[in-house]
Amino acid sequence: MNVEFINPFLSSLLNVLSTMAQTELKPGKPKIKKDEVACGDVSGLIGMVGPQTKGSFSITFDESLALTIMERMLGERPDSINEEVTDMVGEITNMVTGGAKNLLGEKGYDFNMATPIVVSGKGHTITHKSEGAKILIPFTSDAGNANIEVSFDKI
Amino acid sequence: MNVEFINPFLSSLLNVLSTMAQTELKPGKPKIKKDEVACGDVSGLIGMVGPQTKGSFSITFDESLALTIMERMLGERPDSINEEVTDMVGEITNMVTGGAKNLLGEKGYDFNMATPIVVSGKGHTITHKSEGAKILIPFTSDAGNANIEVSFDKI
Repeated sequence: MNVEFINPFLSSLLNVLSTMAQTELKPGKPKIKKDEVACGDVSGLIGMVGPQTKGSFSITFDESLALTIMERMLGERPDSINEEVTDMVGEITNMVTGGAKNLLGEKGYDFNMATPIVVSGKGHTITHKSEGAKILIPFTSDAGNANIEVSFDKI
Repeated sequence: MNVEFINPFLSSLLNVLSTMAQTELKPGKPKIKKDEVACGDVSGLIGMVGPQTKGSFSITFDESLALTIMERMLGERPDSINEEVTDMVGEITNMVTGGAKNLLGEKGYDFNMATPIVVSGKGHTITHKSEGAKILIPFTSDAGNANIEVSFDKI
């Protein structure tokens, strides 16, 4: 999997969060994930299937960042990760993947998206089990950290 | 989503675990998931996309059951949920979904599967964010509990 393939997810995420929640994420250096484990408190995951390849995308937030995004979108800050927060994380997952899908379509890679799944639990870790490389991008922000992972078979 | 749709996942799971790990799971009553939250320690998740609908499947294990399955498959019990265990959970997720995909294909529902994702973390919860009903089936066994969830848009 090359960087051409991860960039659509990166730019879609920055766009979604600045538009929806006035939150600027600062991307770190993309890494090929090997032993590295990214922890977080709430994650959105989605599968993607296309004629050339299949794969998965995940976005993981620190609790503080997820709650701040809620606050900036709705004007009210939940005390903890509740159903509204997991709904929002599912929606962000859909929007980021939908944006990336459009950008990848322009490059000739077509995909259909499955439905998102949200995981909550303090300090959980995500492992993508595709046959291809797993690319991780860490992000920092004024309200906490996030990271995305993208992995596709055979690209 | 009707029971006709969940049964292929149920029978595929029972078959995979009894064949691969000589482990008999005892299914409880399927439930439409509303507020109900199923916790577990390691989960495999996968997206499915077809021409009629799309959705997601997850299977969540207690740590004790995941470690026992490893022990029965490989003859050695890991101390905790390591990469071998998450690989196995990813493989079980693929096998169960592949078996269900074949059974659903016989009923006229075709799907392509995305790649699996494995989540580990004590007591995490999974929420499927499709537009359809979420069906949960709990399982008990001699070595601990598991549960599966299946959710599809518009069936």
